[in-house]
Parts: sequence; C-alpha cells; structure tokens
Amino acid sequence: MSANPLHPAAPSGQGAPAGGGAHRFQRALAGLGDGVDTPAAIVLADVMQANIDRMQGFATEHGLELRPHVKTHKCVEIGRRQIAAGAVGITAGNVGEAEVFAAAGFDDIFLAYPIWPAGSKRERIRRLAEQVRLRVGVDSVAAVHALADAMAGDPDRLQVVVEIDCGARRSGAPPEFAGQIARAARDRGLVPVGVFTYPGHGGSRRDARRAAADDQQRALISAVRSLAGVGVTAEVVSAGSTPTVEFSDSSVITEIRPGEYVFCDLDNMRLGACGEEQIALFVAATVVSDWVPDQVILDTGTKALGREGSAERGYGGVAGTQAVLTKLNEYHGFLGLPPGEHRPAIGTVVPVVPNHVCPVVLNFEELLVTDSAGTSLERWPVDARGFLN
Amino acid sequence: MSANPLHPAAPSGQGAPAGGGAHRFQRALAGLGDGVDTPAAIVLADVMQANIDRMQGFATEHGLELRPHVKTHKCVEIGRRQIAAGAVGITAGNVGEAEVFAAAGFDDIFLAYPIWPAGSKRERIRRLAEQVRLRVGVDSVAAVHALADAMAGDPDRLQVVVEIDCGARRSGAPPEFAGQIARAARDRGLVPVGVFTYPGHGGSRRDARRAAADDQQRALISAVRSLAGVGVTAEVVSAGSTPTVEFSDSSVITEIRPGEYVFCDLDNMRLGACGEEQIALFVAATVVSDWVPDQVILDTGTKALGREGSAERGYGGVAGTQAVLTKLNEYHGFLGLPPGEHRPAIGTVVPVVPNHVCPVVLNFEELLVTDSAGTSLERWPVDARGFLN
Repeated sequence: MSANPLHPAAPSGQGAPAGGGAHRFQRALAGLGDGVDTPAAIVLADVMQANIDRMQGFATEHGLELRPHVKTHKCVEIGRRQIAAGAVGITAGNVGEAEVFAAAGFDDIFLAYPIWPAGSKRERIRRLAEQVRLRVGVDSVAAVHALADAMAGDPDRLQVVVEIDCGARRSGAPPEFAGQIARAARDRGLVPVGVFTYPGHGGSRRDARRAAADDQQRALISAVRSLAGVGVTAEVVSAGSTPTVEFSDSSVITEIRPGEYVFCDLDNMRLGACGEEQIALFVAATVVSDWVPDQVILDTGTKALGREGSAERGYGGVAGTQAVLTKLNEYHGFLGLPPGEHRPAIGTVVPVVPNHVCPVVLNFEELLVTDSAGTSLERWPVDARGFLN
Repeated sequence: MSANPLHPAAPSGQGAPAGGGAHRFQRALAGLGDGVDTPAAIVLADVMQANIDRMQGFATEHGLELRPHVKTHKCVEIGRRQIAAGAVGITAGNVGEAEVFAAAGFDDIFLAYPIWPAGSKRERIRRLAEQVRLRVGVDSVAAVHALADAMAGDPDRLQVVVEIDCGARRSGAPPEFAGQIARAARDRGLVPVGVFTYPGHGGSRRDARRAAADDQQRALISAVRSLAGVGVTAEVVSAGSTPTVEFSDSSVITEIRPGEYVFCDLDNMRLGACGEEQIALFVAATVVSDWVPDQVILDTGTKALGREGSAERGYGGVAGTQAVLTKLNEYHGFLGLPPGEHRPAIGTVVPVVPNHVCPVVLNFEELLVTDSAGTSLERWPVDARGFLN
C-alpha cells in the first residue's frame, strides 16, 4: 500500500501539518460542521490566495508575464483574483472555456491549443476575436489556412502563436518549422506574435524537470530564430507549467502559463513542485461502510476524483493520516488503513486530497470556499465545467 | 501497443463491423457532416433501443424485474425509454440523481447505495420519500438509526434494502448479519423489503464472471435466510450488473440492476458481456496535430474520456481501425497508429470508442443522438450530470 505523503511521518519528509494537532483540512471541516453534503470540493481561500500571490511574485521578480491556465479551476471568481494579482490575461484549453471567460469580462485570452476550426467553431472563434484580444495556438500550415478561412474578411483580428514540441511528443511543430508556419499565417493576414511549448516530458525528479525545462529553453530559442528567419519578431515566448516554472529563464521566455499552482495536489507535491502547506483544495468525503478489515468505504469514487492514480500511488489520501485510497469504483472509494492507523467511524467526514486536482474540479458544479479556520463559506460556481469543445 | 478490439481483424474475433465497408460509427459521422463540434458524445438511438429491448426481453423471459441503473446515462429521456420497455423503476447511485429523476416524474427509485444521511441529506431523503416510492440501501445498524432519525415522524414512508457483500469487499454487510440490520430497521419503523448485492469481483474471464455470479447467488440465499430468521420476508432480492446479468437465477433473484448495457463499451466487450454491434455511444474527435511518426493527436483527453484504461489496454480505440489511444492528457489524446494503419489527416473527425462509458457521459452536457444511418440528430441533456452528492 502506498504511503500517504500528507502524513507528518511520511518518508518524503514533506508532510508536516501546517499547525499543531489536527491538519488544517480537518480543522476547516470541523468549522463547517454539519453543513456539507458530501462529496464536496472545498477550497481554502487563504491558501489559494497565497499560491496566487506567490506565483505572481515569482513572475514579477523574474520579469515574466503570468498568464494562468484556467483549466485547473474553470472558475471566473478565481480568474479574477489571478488578474487582480497581476496576471496579464488567461490561458484556456478549448473554445468553450474561452467563451465563458470572455462573457465574464476577461479581455485577453490565449487558447493554447492547436484549434481546428470546423462546424460552429469557425463562427465561435470569429466572434471571440471580436470580443477580446484572442490568441490561438497553431502547429500546422493546414490549421493556418482553416483559421484564416474562419476569420473571413477579418484575419488581422486573430493573433496566432506557433506551438512547438520540446520533447513531449504531443502537439507542436519541430522548432525549425515555426518560421514556415508563421510566414503562412502572415501571408493569409493573420497576426503571428510568437511561439509556445509545453515541457510535459519532465518525469518525477527535480533534475528531470530541470532537463525538460532546458529542452524547452533550447526549443524556444530555436523557434524564435526560425521566426526571425522569415522576418517575424516573437513578442510572445510562452512556456508551461507548474512543475517546470521555477526553471523559466526570462532571457528567452516572456510568459509562463502554469495552472495547477492555484490549488496544488499530491502529484505536484511528489514532484517537489509545491509543499504540503500549499495544497488548497480537498474533497470532503463521508465514511459510508466499514465491514472490511483495514479498510473503510468513502462516498468518493471516480465520479468525484477521476481515476487519477495507480496501484502504486493510490488514488488520493486523507490529510493528516497515512490512509490512502487503494481503489475507486464510480461512487465508492476504498480507503486502506495501514496498521496502527485510526479507523474513522461510519458517518465521519474526512478530507481527501486528490492526486491530480484538475479532473476533480471538473466533476463539481461548485466549489465550497472557506479558510483554514473554517470561518467563512461561499459557493463559487465552476463556470466552465461543461464546455468541452 | 494494444490491439484495438474494434478492428475486424482483431485477434479477439469480436470486431467484425456491422455492415460492409465503413464502420457504422464512421457512416453516422459522415451523415452528420460538418455539424458536430468535437469532442462530442454521440449516441446511435437504434443500437441503444435494441440494447434496451434485449435486456428487457432477457428479464421478462427469466421472470426477473429490470431496474436499470441510471448512473450510466444520467438522462431522463433514456430512463423513460427503459420504463416504456418494461423496467419496474430505476436505480440511482446518489441522492442528487434520485432527485433529478423524481422531478422528471419517475416514481419508483432504488438508491442502491449505503446512504449516510447528514447535513441537508436528511431533509432531501425525507422529501424524496414523500414524492416517490423510495428504497435506499443500508449496510449497518448505525445507518438504520440515522435514516430513521432523518425520517422523523414518518419512518414507514422509507423502504430499506440491506446491502450484503458477496466477495467484492466493498460495501455490504456479511450475509448472516442482514437479519440483524433488517430487524433494527423494523424496530425503528422503517420498512425492510429485502437484500441487494453487487458481484464486482468477477474478473475478466467468463468463468470468473460465472463464479462471481455463483458467489452472489449463495450470498443472497444466505441473506434471505437471515431476514427470515427475524421474521422479515425478502420481497426484493436484487442483483447487479451488466457483466454478470446473464447468470441471474430467478429461483432466488427477483430484480436485476444493470446499467452499462444501454450503451456498452470496450470493457464490456472484452469481458464478453456485449458484442461489438451493441456499442451505442462513441466520442467524435478531431485530429488536431500530426507531427509525431506513428501517432496523431486527437482533441479528446481525460476531460472527455476520463482516465479509464492502462498502458496495456490503451484508453479507447477508433472504430473500424486498429488505432488505440496510448496516452491521455487533459485535452489531448495520443492516438497510436500501428504499422500499416491509415494515418488520418489533420482535421479528420474519427469515432473514439471508450473503454468505460459511464465517466464519459458524465463529462458532457448533452448527448448528440442520431442513428446508424446518420439520418436524425437530437440533443438530449445529461440531466443528472452535476449531482454528485
């Protein structure tokens, strides 16, 4: 069974609780009393705000523009806090997310995805480009033509950022092709403004993350040169991600697009990309059955947590304990109790910390927002949760 | 790389397409033309209706009542078709699902889950029990008392069904304790009506599924005797699930609660619980990037499909091909192309068949409903998608 890295005695040494005694999530739950129907996604606003401020401070200190990815929270209220702290705009993962945030007044949106405009997406992108300063990702000449066709008579309303691959072997052109794509965009009247990439091949160790960030750096330099070769200046040189952001070098990079930093999670903690005290979201779960030795059943399954994990890592842990979810069904979480671990009684509400926070948020209609003392409770809708395309 | 079991030449021998030439999903997509923004969940209504009718026919033929689990579709329109075909009522997995279907006029609902009534759930359950014939699962004396407290002066409006474990080691009391729980319910004025279980330990081979069904049968017999021992007649003896339903023995079992049969998926096909021609739902996905050899990127990641799969099985396959999703990010699906497989061009829309259909439906706001000829297109809301608790 996996050790729960949230436990103070966990071997990672990163699990010391923020205060003495009960974990802050347990204190927040105690403060909320009987008012929470589980499963519920609960955000500690003070911890979240500190995350927002810390990342903004890092960006400002290093001369980088921060453009947070809203995929993690999909929540207008949180996006507003990121902008208020100094973010230059937002990053979205699909057209629907961009529409929701545009309708809420966000006026600078980068769709960091190689959008293929077909069906109603043509008209939707054209409309978005009228509403806000819209940038979209593009990694092929074919997509350049499709976007230019979609923009009909107004191609210069749409800025494009060329996506390049820096080793993740996902989307993105080889860096040396960036110029060719930018030139095609310019020839069709679109406005090429720069390049972006995502160093998703970092692996789990800090030196591996640094190596991925180095790959990112080299690929971006090469892509900027490729743009210069066709006479396009890269105003935007945009980099990911929460786990690699600490290695961002502003001699090349102009902008960072982390998303998960706002909440953090066990996966980022395992990567060393956050500390335990930065985790700002947990799922309140109730013990609903307790017949099996060394296990209780929680009312959090894949429909709340997604199936993010593995037999080795487990599927999430209970804060302040060594208990780990060893298996999930759709409505059931199998919480393994290591020898000596306290066995929570049926009806007990426990704080489950997810491995990967993004799919969790997507599952809920609203976030219950309190603070580490459990003294306030607001409800913020997950505004863009349904907008998949 | 995993072989795609949907391919006609797949080693499983189950992959023959329903008609000559293109797969029926590809024909449906061609019929829909340019009108689909991807990713989209597309249902072939004719295939789905045949699944509904087939399961109802099986139940009727074997003298079993069919109470479909709505967790799979969460869609009022589909629930109505199941009732119209002869289902006695529906099964729900949480209070929110039950509320949505009750509000839509469904009047016989079994919450097949060990509900713990706390917070507003007390009032919500009481209200539901006034609206519909409500049955809830219970697997402990503690929950009996909590439910009786929640029902205040009206405990006899609530029927309870004792959950027993038949080997899945999930929720459910040992069968020999069923009587004790039923007696506690009766003593508190609740109405114990029977027992239920879920044979989730079946494994992947037909003989293993049969063995799990045999365990289920033995456990239910034991639980019925336990109820009889305290003078409670088990009117309801309720069994799962799509993969084990074929082994249901009506000499003991009165009711079956399959859910996934309505759409089917690759996992059920691998289990031998459905044929390829029974799969009624796919996700339309667009090729958005094609720079990596032997791979293209689709716009379907975990936010559309969930992370249901493994490196061995993959995360879904393209119908009519041997191509399998080998990896998912949130908005990106990595579609591996085996040697000799046709490489779909950027902008092509392809039909992705999920491993596990339930989490997919949950991700979408609506189902696009057509038929195998692509001649009709309706939109059905996924009514209960947001109701997690």
